Amino acid sequence: MVPHLVTALTGPINELEQRVLDSMPAIERWFRLEWMEHTPPFYTAVDVRNAGFKLAPVDTNFYPGGWNNLTPAMLPLAVQAAQAAIEKICPEARNLLIVPENNARGTFHLSNLAQMRRIFHMAGLNVRIGSISPEVKKSTTIELPGGESITIEPVIRTKGRLGVKDFDPCTILLNNDLRAGVPGILEEVNEQYLLPPLHASWTTRRKSTHFKAYEEVAKRFGKLIGVDPWLINPMFDKYGVVDLVTPAGIDALVQRVDAMLTKVKKKYKEYGIKERPFVVIKADNRTSGNAILSVRDTKDLETKLRKMGAGLDAAPAPLELILQEGVLTNERVNDAVAEPVVYLMDRYVVGGFYRMHAERGEDENLSAPGSAYVPLAFAESTHLPQPGVRPGASAPNRFYMYGVIGRLAMLAGSYELEATDPDAERYD
Amino acid sequence: MVPHLVTALTGPINELEQRVLDSMPAIERWFRLEWMEHTPPFYTAVDVRNAGFKLAPVDTNFYPGGWNNLTPAMLPLAVQAAQAAIEKICPEARNLLIVPENNARGTFHLSNLAQMRRIFHMAGLNVRIGSISPEVKKSTTIELPGGESITIEPVIRTKGRLGVKDFDPCTILLNNDLRAGVPGILEEVNEQYLLPPLHASWTTRRKSTHFKAYEEVAKRFGKLIGVDPWLINPMFDKYGVVDLVTPAGIDALVQRVDAMLTKVKKKYKEYGIKERPFVVIKADNRTSGNAILSVRDTKDLETKLRKMGAGLDAAPAPLELILQEGVLTNERVNDAVAEPVVYLMDRYVVGGFYRMHAERGEDENLSAPGSAYVPLAFAESTHLPQPGVRPGASAPNRFYMYGVIGRLAMLAGSYELEATDPDAERYD
Repeated sequence: MVPHLVTALTGPINELEQRVLDSMPAIERWFRLEWMEHTPPFYTAVDVRNAGFKLAPVDTNFYPGGWNNLTPAMLPLAVQAAQAAIEKICPEARNLLIVPENNARGTFHLSNLAQMRRIFHMAGLNVRIGSISPEVKKSTTIELPGGESITIEPVIRTKGRLGVKDFDPCTILLNNDLRAGVPGILEEVNEQYLLPPLHASWTTRRKSTHFKAYEEVAKRFGKLIGVDPWLINPMFDKYGVVDLVTPAGIDALVQRVDAMLTKVKKKYKEYGIKERPFVVIKADNRTSGNAILSVRDTKDLETKLRKMGAGLDAAPAPLELILQEGVLTNERVNDAVAEPVVYLMDRYVVGGFYRMHAERGEDENLSAPGSAYVPLAFAESTHLPQPGVRPGASAPNRFYMYGVIGRLAMLAGSYELEATDPDAERYD
Repeated sequence: MVPHLVTALTGPINELEQRVLDSMPAIERWFRLEWMEHTPPFYTAVDVRNAGFKLAPVDTNFYPGGWNNLTPAMLPLAVQAAQAAIEKICPEARNLLIVPENNARGTFHLSNLAQMRRIFHMAGLNVRIGSISPEVKKSTTIELPGGESITIEPVIRTKGRLGVKDFDPCTILLNNDLRAGVPGILEEVNEQYLLPPLHASWTTRRKSTHFKAYEEVAKRFGKLIGVDPWLINPMFDKYGVVDLVTPAGIDALVQRVDAMLTKVKKKYKEYGIKERPFVVIKADNRTSGNAILSVRDTKDLETKLRKMGAGLDAAPAPLELILQEGVLTNERVNDAVAEPVVYLMDRYVVGGFYRMHAERGEDENLSAPGSAYVPLAFAESTHLPQPGVRPGASAPNRFYMYGVIGRLAMLAGSYELEATDPDAERYD
């Protein structure tokens, strides 16, 4: 089953699809050359939005959960990609320790852990799951609905190394985005590979750094295949620390939102798009509160912002914002809004699924905390475009295009991690 | 659909399967370490035989055809593996030239070429097909039953390079085993990657060299997982140039066959195997005639050999033989004998299928020239063993085991190509 686009199947997105398909060898070569210079993140999930006239990543996750949402048919690809990833990092590896979320008791996260364990076991590793939560004091086995079980053990820290009882891993894989900050137990783990690196966590990350890197990638890619980079790139504006208390502070933000709405309107006009533009106001780093606001006009914005500011008083850090051009999602399964998520392991697209929610609108954030979503696995591989099929008419072609956009965001993630690496040698 | 074993599902093969599954992380690690030291052949197909008590490769092909026999579900794996292979050899590659068999007009070979073109195109290359046959003087397009078409062009040789009209490839991929010898047009192609290398062809290859390398691999692997290497290794005896004309020459061969039968009988006794052992007499290099003989006892062997000798007078080169322990194939689909073939791209198992022939016996060669065989794609991936399932009861587990044996043979192929490389620097 493949979600359909509610927009007519003509227009910019199909031109983009055609360009992407026609340029396939050039695109793949370009990625190959990029991977000679840059290191892909260990694993990545990219939220993509297809507005019918524009296709863009809206979030790049370095600690993807939800591996259990992929179809069984995608498992071999994930295993093969995991083998390639391990081979590169630590070919002598016997043991892999997965660090789950601190509160890992939910069935969803546990099923995800079971799937990750399966992938890395099949790739040839002994896999154990070690929690860094101070609450986890002894090994606990939890049964899963399908009959599998997951054992979560407390990690044991020795000088320079992390492990669990009688298990000394070569590599530690975080599946925990450390949103509350990097705990001491993960610092100075110097004798093992700790992946993703700590600066991939939200303590260091800024969405604006990612989208700046993505903007660069999108420009170069646009040039490569001859399309306006705006078709794959959401405009953004790094706002920095916001003042939501004084009228001057609020007014300054309203001005910037207005400026971006104007810019987006101009682009819509250029392409004859009839939709109403909107701007999303987000926290630049995920840890400073979950502020998120979709704005179609600035009329009531002042009031909303004042309310938001009042609610954020208790935020642990000064609130930093990023403004981003809103990208509609115009895919629907029945009446539910669907947002594709592309899964990558090392440099390879291994699958994806649709995140859906019947109750949310097309301009809302589908992965908002607490939103229960229905995963719908891509029906076909992203690897198998069908050249010669009419643009917009082929699911494999659309998935290939999603895989390309996912890889562009992942490449931007690679640039981002290089730019923020505290240990990198700088020559500039 | 999965062929069933006619032997009871108990006994040595299930012990082997259990050992292989239990040792999965150790096995995968072992392969990873091997690939740090050795280069896998570009692509490989391995014929495997499952006797119910023994599982062994009987042929390793460096120029595999039959890619069209893999299921569509295996295509993404092949594409991903092809990307890894290309990345390693020539990341800047734009263009790939496939050299087909000289007589490439059969639908089967053409469908194979179409599938190979699809795989490498999806991996991001422009693919053209260039024949080295002197008969191919102009570009010819042939329609395939499925609606696809294949264009075969004559190659154009310039100093140091090979291509077709307006197409200069980075890599030339032979899908032609050069059984009639290496043609001048392929010599001194110094500016491009020519894969597999010319010494992978039967002009240089000897089955005995391959099986000597395989014997070494099997011994080390047997030690790794704690099994008798004989369970995965067919005994062999490199006979060298044979004299089938004088009685003394024939008698010498009969003696050696007898000696091997005795050795195999001893092994059968050790394992309580009730089958009658047999020995296969083959040409050591494929080019010196298609001599092949299955021998259960040496009673009529002299007569048979004399007849064979008379038929071989016109052989282009002195006949070199190898004696090999026969391995029964005890898998059946309905009543047809089935022989698994494992397909590998670079170091990855990407799929496989069963070669079947209702009219041939369990001790005969299923890929004998002219034998029409029915391909049956493996129903499941070789990547997905199911730990905990009773040995012999799970198709994915059996396929995983076949994938391991296929990789052992491929690794032996890698040793073989290193040992026979005319350009290698020798330190011994």
